This record gives sequence, C-alpha cells and structure tokens, in this order.
Amino acid sequence: MTLPPEFHDIAKRVNNWGRWGEDDERGTLNLITDAIVRDAATTVRTGHRVPLALPLQQDGVQTGMIPGRVNPLHTMVALNHEMFGPGTVATSDDAVTMGLQAATHWDALTHVSHSGRIYNGRPADTITAHGGAAFSGIDKSRGIVSRGVLLDVARARGEEVLAGGHAVTPDDLAAAEELAGTRVRAGDIVLVRTGQMRRYLAGDKQAYAFPSPGLSVRTPEWFHARDVAAVANDTLTFEIFPPEIENLWLPVHALDLVEMGMLQGQNWNLEELSEACAEESRYAFLLAADPEPFVGGTGTPVAPVAVL
Amino acid sequence: MTLPPEFHDIAKRVNNWGRWGEDDERGTLNLITDAIVRDAATTVRTGHRVPLALPLQQDGVQTGMIPGRVNPLHTMVALNHEMFGPGTVATSDDAVTMGLQAATHWDALTHVSHSGRIYNGRPADTITAHGGAAFSGIDKSRGIVSRGVLLDVARARGEEVLAGGHAVTPDDLAAAEELAGTRVRAGDIVLVRTGQMRRYLAGDKQAYAFPSPGLSVRTPEWFHARDVAAVANDTLTFEIFPPEIENLWLPVHALDLVEMGMLQGQNWNLEELSEACAEESRYAFLLAADPEPFVGGTGTPVAPVAVL
Amino acid sequence: MTLPPEFHDIAKRVNNWGRWGEDDERGTLNLITDAIVRDAATTVRTGHRVPLALPLQQDGVQTGMIPGRVNPLHTMVALNHEMFGPGTVATSDDAVTMGLQAATHWDALTHVSHSGRIYNGRPADTITAHGGAAFSGIDKSRGIVSRGVLLDVARARGEEVLAGGHAVTPDDLAAAEELAGTRVRAGDIVLVRTGQMRRYLAGDKQAYAFPSPGLSVRTPEWFHARDVAAVANDTLTFEIFPPEIENLWLPVHALDLVEMGMLQGQNWNLEELSEACAEESRYAFLLAADPEPFVGGTGTPVAPVAVL
Amino acid sequence: MTLPPEFHDIAKRVNNWGRWGEDDERGTLNLITDAIVRDAATTVRTGHRVPLALPLQQDGVQTGMIPGRVNPLHTMVALNHEMFGPGTVATSDDAVTMGLQAATHWDALTHVSHSGRIYNGRPADTITAHGGAAFSGIDKSRGIVSRGVLLDVARARGEEVLAGGHAVTPDDLAAAEELAGTRVRAGDIVLVRTGQMRRYLAGDKQAYAFPSPGLSVRTPEWFHARDVAAVANDTLTFEIFPPEIENLWLPVHALDLVEMGMLQGQNWNLEELSEACAEESRYAFLLAADPEPFVGGTGTPVAPVAVL
Repeated sequence: MTLPPEFHDIAKRVNNWGRWGEDDERGTLNLITDAIVRDAATTVRTGHRVPLALPLQQDGVQTGMIPGRVNPLHTMVALNHEMFGPGTVATSDDAVTMGLQAATHWDALTHVSHSGRIYNGRPADTITAHGGAAFSGIDKSRGIVSRGVLLDVARARGEEVLAGGHAVTPDDLAAAEELAGTRVRAGDIVLVRTGQMRRYLAGDKQAYAFPSPGLSVRTPEWFHARDVAAVANDTLTFEIFPPEIENLWLPVHALDLVEMGMLQGQNWNLEELSEACAEESRYAFLLAADPEPFVGGTGTPVAPVAVL
Repeated sequence: MTLPPEFHDIAKRVNNWGRWGEDDERGTLNLITDAIVRDAATTVRTGHRVPLALPLQQDGVQTGMIPGRVNPLHTMVALNHEMFGPGTVATSDDAVTMGLQAATHWDALTHVSHSGRIYNGRPADTITAHGGAAFSGIDKSRGIVSRGVLLDVARARGEEVLAGGHAVTPDDLAAAEELAGTRVRAGDIVLVRTGQMRRYLAGDKQAYAFPSPGLSVRTPEWFHARDVAAVANDTLTFEIFPPEIENLWLPVHALDLVEMGMLQGQNWNLEELSEACAEESRYAFLLAADPEPFVGGTGTPVAPVAVL
Repeated sequence: MTLPPEFHDIAKRVNNWGRWGEDDERGTLNLITDAIVRDAATTVRTGHRVPLALPLQQDGVQTGMIPGRVNPLHTMVALNHEMFGPGTVATSDDAVTMGLQAATHWDALTHVSHSGRIYNGRPADTITAHGGAAFSGIDKSRGIVSRGVLLDVARARGEEVLAGGHAVTPDDLAAAEELAGTRVRAGDIVLVRTGQMRRYLAGDKQAYAFPSPGLSVRTPEWFHARDVAAVANDTLTFEIFPPEIENLWLPVHALDLVEMGMLQGQNWNLEELSEACAEESRYAFLLAADPEPFVGGTGTPVAPVAVL
Repeated sequence: MTLPPEFHDIAKRVNNWGRWGEDDERGTLNLITDAIVRDAATTVRTGHRVPLALPLQQDGVQTGMIPGRVNPLHTMVALNHEMFGPGTVATSDDAVTMGLQAATHWDALTHVSHSGRIYNGRPADTITAHGGAAFSGIDKSRGIVSRGVLLDVARARGEEVLAGGHAVTPDDLAAAEELAGTRVRAGDIVLVRTGQMRRYLAGDKQAYAFPSPGLSVRTPEWFHARDVAAVANDTLTFEIFPPEIENLWLPVHALDLVEMGMLQGQNWNLEELSEACAEESRYAFLLAADPEPFVGGTGTPVAPVAVL
C-alpha cells in the first residue's frame, strides 16, 4: 500500500522543504519573528491567565489504544526525609515515567514520517532508539511564544461537542474565524476547539479517544495559506479519526509535520479558554507554550498558558 | 537536633501562614494579580525570546549526589512504525523516566517540611507515596506568568562565576538591583544569577554540584519585604551549599517554601539571558514559566521563557 | 475502624515473632534447611521443567484497579546500534518500568502492615520512600529453592475454575493434598491452584481481577500447622476478594506476611503445571523461585520453575 | 569498516543456524534435555544454596559508560497505605525503572547483530522499538535449569583477580576445568570466574567497568566443541575489553549470540560460589537461572541460584 495521488497532490501544495534552508529543523516556527511576539504582547488586556494543560496523573487520557503511550506514573523517592539527621529540614522528591505524547503535548516534526522521509527531506532513519531524532527533535523547537487565536468551531456551530464523525473543514475554520473577529495571520498559533475534551472531563475516556472529531485533510492548505506557526486542539488524535478517506491514515499528521514542518498540539484543554474568550468577545491573546526540551524527543509535554 | 533559635526568629518574620486564608495552597503566587500580568506584558520591547531550560538528557546535571533524583532516561516505544500497514504514515513515540526535580525545575511548596509542617501549617504527612502532596502539590501552582527581573549578581560583582563559598546576601541583591535599573516589587519573579551554570556548561558536573554558591539565609527577609512571587537561580542547590551556619541544612528552602510559601526554581540557565539583558541594559521582561501540572508533585520540570 | 477480635485471635495462634530471633528478617524461609533442599532434589524424576511466570508485557494482568501497580512498559534505548562505527557489531538494549508486584511476583514480608507493625514486631515506618523496607525487604529473602507441592484445589473439586466467591478452605487444601498423594511438610512451598488464571488467559482481565476466588482467612492456621515456607497461587489478590468477613480487608495478607512471616506469591501461572502433575500423578517437585533482589523492595517479579 | 576475515573464519566454525530447524529461537538451550536436568539434580549433595545475583539498587554496576543502561531506580507508589480506611491493613507498593541489562542479567540472542543478521539468519530489523525482538526475545528462553560448572580461572591461576588486560583463553578454561575435576559437557551452563567482581564489591565501579578481563575471541570454539548451553561470568563486558584485536569490537558477543545462538550472562557474582566450591572441592551443581520473560526483551535481569 502506498499513499494515494490525492495525498501527494496536497503534499506538493503545502510543502515547505528548503524554504528556510536545507539545514532547517524548525519549520513554520521560523514564522514567529520578534516583531510578531512584540505585537502579540499587545494583545494582553486583562492579564487574565488561562492554563491549558490537563493535570498529569495516572488517570489520564490514555486508554491503552496506543501501545507504549503510558499515562504518567508519579512515584516518590523521598518523603519528608530528614537526610541530615533527626529534626532537620526534611525533603520530598518524586520521579515520573510517562509517554512524552501521553498528555497535553506537542508533536515534534519527527513524530511521523512517510515514504521514508521526515521534514525537510531528511531520511526517516535519522531517528533512532539511541538518541531519538537527530534532526528536528522537540529540543529544536524552543521559544514558542506568539499570538494565539482560538478558533472555537464548536461554539461557532452552536454545538457543545462536535460529533465523533465530524471533520473540521476550512469552512468551519472560516466560520470560527468570523466569530473570533480577527484574521489568522503569519506566525499565529491556532487553537481549534471541537469540544471533544468535554467527553474526557465528563469521565468517558473511551468516547474521548474514539471516534474523534478532528481536522480534515483539507485544513493543511488553509493553515499553509495563512502561514500559521503551529496548531493545537482538544482531541487525542488531532485529525478526524477514523479518517475521512478509507485507508488513508494520519494524512493530516503527514501533511502538517512532514510536508509543512508545522508543530501540532494535542489534548489541550480549551474549555476554560472558550468561556473566557466568549465572555470578553475576543479570541486573540498572548500564548506561551514552550516545549520541555527533551533531546531528540519526537514529542513532549507542554504547559501552555494563554494570557488575555 | 532541632532547628536553632536563629532560624525560628527569621521564620517568624517571613511567615505567611493564613495570609491568603487557611485553605490557601499557592502562597506568594497569590501576589501575581491580573494587573501585574497586564503590566508585565508592557515590558516586552523587542520580542526577543530567551528559553531558560537546560536540554533534557541523560547527561544532565545530576551526579548521583541526591539519591533517586535521576537524569532523564529517554526511550523509544515506536520508531517509524507503520501501524496501519506497509507504506502508510509511520509514527515514532517516546517515553521518559526522570526525577521531577532533576533538571530545570520548580520546587513545589511541599518539597520540604520542617518541624512536621508544610506551608500554611498543614501536617507534613499529608504528603504520601500514594498520591504525593494532598495540598500544595505543584498542580496547585498554575498560571505562572509575570514580570521577571534578572538580578545578575555575578555581573554586578564583575565576576564570571561566584566562588563556591559565596553566599548571596541582601547587599548582593541590592547591588544587582541597582545594575538592573528597576526596583523589585510585589508579584515579580526574581531570577538570581550566580554564574554557577558555567561550570556545568563547561562540562564539570561535580564542580557545578558542590560546593555551590547560592542564596544566604538572610535573603528570605529581603524577598519577603518586596513581596516577590517566586525566585529561581542557576544552581543545583539554590542556597549556598554547604550551608553558612554549621549544621543548619537547607534553611533557605525551609524559609521560602514552608514559611513564606514562595516557589523556588533551580538549574535555570541564565547565561544567554544575562548577555541579552546586558546588551539591552534592561533586566525586566515578561516571564512565562508554568509548571507541568503533576498532580501531587513536590516539584516539576519547567520550560521558562523570558520575552524581552 | 480497628481489626476485629476474630482476627487477633487467629493472629495470636499463627504468630512467629521472635521464633528465629529478634533480628530475623526472613520468617518461614528459615524452615528451608539444606537437608530439605537436598531431599527436594530427589523429587526430580523426569527432568521436565515447567516455568510458572506470565510473560512480562504491557498487556499484563493489571487493570488499573490497584493505583500505581503498572504493567511492564518495555522500551528500547538502542536498536542495532553500531556504536563502534558502520559495519561493526551492533547492539540492542532495553529498559523497563513496572510495578514490582504487577506480574508474577512474591510479596515481601513488608508488603503489608497492620496496627503499625510489620513482621517480627518492627515498626511499619521502617519502610520509607527513600530506600524502601529497611528490614525484611525482598532482598533479604534469597535462595528460594525447595520442594514444591501443587495443591490443585480446582482439579480436586472437579472444577475448571473456582467460582469468584469461593474461599479456599482448609478442607479444600486437605482434599487437594489427598489428590496430591503427599503430605505437606515443613519447608515446603505450596502452590494453590484455583484455575482463576484461565480467565486471564482467555482474555478477560476484568473477570480475572474481580471478584476472585482465593484463600480463606482460615488457611493461615493450616499453613502454620504444617510449617510451610511459602505459598503462591494463580490469582491477583491471593485471598478471596471481596473478603469473606465484611469490612475485614486483606486479613490473609496480614496473617501470612505480618504474623507468620510467610512469603506469598501471586499471579503464578499453574495451568501447565496442573496438566503435567495430573499426567504423572505426582504433585511434588523441585521448585526454584528466587526473587529479584531489589534492595528494600516490598515485592518483586519472580520467574519460578518447577522441575518434575 | 567490515568485520575481518579472521572473524568470519571462526563464525563459520561455530555457526549453529538451522541446526534446530529454521524456526528455532532458542539456540543452544535446546541442548538442555530432560535427561540432562534429571542428571543435574543428582549433583545436589549438601543442599547448600548460593544466590548469584547482585542486589538491585541505584548504586549498581552501571557507570554511565553504556548510554541508556540505567541502574535500577526503586520508587514507592504506596507506603503503609490504609486503602480501606483508617485502622485497616495497610499496603506498600513499589515500582522500578531499569535497563534490562543493567545488573546480573542474561543477554538474549538478539542483544547483538552483525552484518544485518541475528541468530538463525533472521534479519536484524525484526527487532523494533515497537515490541522489541519479534524472534529470539528473552521470553523464548524459558526453563533454564541445568548442571552448572564453575570454571574458576582466577583460582586456577592462583590470582585474586585477573588483570584488566587478561583475555581468558581456551587454555585458561582447560586449566580451570582440571581444577573443577569434571569435564564440561553438552547442556552444561558454564560460569567463568575472573574475580573481576571483587573490584566492584570493593567499591571501585570504574575499575570494574574498564578495562576488564574477559573471554577471548578464541573461547567460542571451545564452548562450541563442548556443546555448552550457556555461559555467564563476573564482568560487565563478558569478553575482554578493550578487545584483543584492534578495531574488532564485541566479537565474542557476535560469535556466541548470533552465530552459535548461545546465551551469555554478565555481572554474576561468583565470589561466594568460588569459596563454596573450593571448600567442597567440587565445581558442578544444579543451577536454576530462569530469565524474567520480558516479551521481545533483548536481555533481562536474572536471579540465579546454585544448589550444591
């Protein structure tokens, strides 16, 4: 089985290989210039902060559907330990084991490959068990602060949660952009809300995981046209799952990460942000979402904060 | 052995228990108001971003001196895995095991206890192996964005790196504040640079770990007087180590975390920031440093970014 | 809530504290003398080996019912890595994270405590997050080789699997002993088969976990009377679960581990052994089941082998 | 760089591919027949048990020389936790993260590959990050009980510890065999003692790790001639390290594991066994050393016991 012509047609249109030089490992993050960050800071009006990360805990969003992607196991290695003798100041220390893509996370550009290639045309086998991604590991994507724009698709459609089979289309994005009252532009980080997180927050992990609304294979061209820096949403799979086109699995991942070189975020909790934006009738804000810089990581937990 | 009267005298002067109510779990983070964040956003002038986290890797700052606090072990659970069949889009996935306080991190208020108590007077045994900290876990410290001020003590003293036995005093802070050209005020996050990180960056982990310059037991009163929201620096131990006063171990931890309820950050890489601030002759900026919200965590990795 | 008088009555009758000295950390393993091992070797007739450990994998017996007891996460840290240059011998290396009691395991004597005490009357708080069990950790239980006797309760009762609510009684043990054709004696390691493992092997983890047949609170006296060295079975909970006596949770654990100082084994796969013993009409064999010696471990994986 | 003709010459002479069928995944373990195990049981005379595993702890034999092979990190997930309410029986539970080859272990046949092949001629890329070794994982090597023979090379040479540059030759093995007073034969598990473990036990990890005495590239032919089932020793590297022949790295691994299909054991503590054998003047015993059956594991911890 190979990827269908339809996929390759889109791929050609959104491809950014070489755009920032053949040595580039950061892709569309290059679009976040100092001027854009400066401007993003001016979007802050109330100073209200909205954290977007899910709590990290063993009872997280993973259900076992994705092998090896384990929920955080939080353990103690010291507990009020008086290491300097009885009556001295005591310390507690903890350790964790978790899948880097288990909770609220960024996919690195290297999270997927297709046809033996990763972003910028490098061979996929530059990712190894010994060291992870030699190129475009998540540690190469530092300094993620920019203007964030919430495209609240669920709210724009007047729905609490998009249906499991709903593929978010460019039209959906356009409608949400209209609701947002601001045009998505170069260097923005776009947060797409489907409302799917409500299923998890209501305690139904299985319904959250599958089937899932998500981005349509038609959206990468929209993001490419706007020169978006990164996109995150409130689902486990990011794109609609199961896929729109039979036997074409993870096409959005392949287009965003491999072809465009654009970071994707998943499992972002956009519920409180949706409320706050609706209340203030503005959907643009300063967004800080720097990845934990795991060397060679193909993904990483992130603790994003929107500042309104 | 019990803590000496000298310690208890200072403790009384900096104690914040009950200040934000008996149910409070956030301590001095309460000092970061929306107005302060709004104001912090106005400090952004160039839009230049400086990430402050060390790369997360097995060759990290830990030397084994602190049992259980292991450097990140980054492993792969999938490597260009064509899970949907040959020729399909392939995925890579990773997992990590690490001490939550192993790299660039925040101590939660519960990282230390003394005399059987944690912040706000709660019993220390509310921290358990099963669930970690029931109160004041790091997941209670969300939304850390404020004005950051670099107090570049090493630069103010004209030294590359403070000597291993140098305790950073209130006078040192005052001199660095003068260099900074801004007065530290309520809600600020203060970054204290000793230059010690240079030893690690030069490849000498042992020299980085011990002996270490760091904050004097006299500094908590200074931070308390200014109503600082949090303090981070570029050392493994935060406070001078071995300690100034014989047999009084970790007094700064106990005063900051337990008495004041003020978060501490360690292993922050302030080298690039020091250069940037000196170049622009301004030492205040927007700082985003939200913790990874491990439920019950007594600490957590953080990926702080300064925006100048 | 405190433990009922009924529990304390049995506890008094099976208590072994001080029997092997106040410094003892091994309990009934002291009953395995060299003479017994020598004799156990003579039980080998065919040389047929039957391994009793379940495969260690992420799809293991744990369902999340017991917090923190995670199935093995097997990861790769090197994969055909030519560390000495292209064309050289390549190495693969793996790492694991798992609960020590997640799969086929021994409980250490310290796995449970009651009334603030562990085996031999030591305080329960000698187990700490920093170092685990200071006394009677699983590393103190070395050299477990003895005569094994299969008490095939399910077969003796003519059942494939005991019902979920079936408490294995002394009468059940006696009937199985009759089937076995050998009297259980001092130093033996007794394997009690309920058939419950069939539920897991058939793919139904939930049914395996709960409800579970298992040992009755009446069995510790039977084991004590025979001076058994250790007991293992083919269930997740070892004892009947939910318990026979309302609100008396884990009484068998408390009696076996704390009072008698007798190791318990869980999740042992006795299916193949049951077939082999029935075929040869003999239920005694050489059993080697040495624990992985985790220092301070309150349990450990074990890979037991019966040699017939 | 490719492997030299000298290597390929030996490889041809010791190759066992196809010997037990093209589907075989167990190699020389096939040589342990029931008759051999039956006979091995008769070597038990005193019943004295000698455990051969090092304690599993963070202060283990790994020094960081081998990336990713981390010493065991033992953590607590519950500590005297009264999960059923105050006053009920309390449980402690632990978790571990460790390199499967970090401590006393077996290499699986898949631990190394050369020229793109693993044992029995299968492609090396049948080992993946997702699932580990599809063939000849350590879970395929169950039931390791046989006659063990200690070849105490150090003692036979009258040395406490072999020098770091000492390659153990067939002549050394022959001399130790003479000391042992028994001929090594088909199905035996041979334990080769260099005394190197004394360096670790004396607290010098670096000296233990490197340079290390170990097996010469000439020994695989000796083991092959005797049809040995497996070989273990008391070093980190198994074979002499750095190697005898410049730029020929890990030739013994490649010959034993890939060509012969013979398991190797490392970091076995043979000190107490050496004393016991010398005292009784006999060097053959029953050895039980079943691997922890990690599915797809390229190695595993083992807790071997010799029964004299």
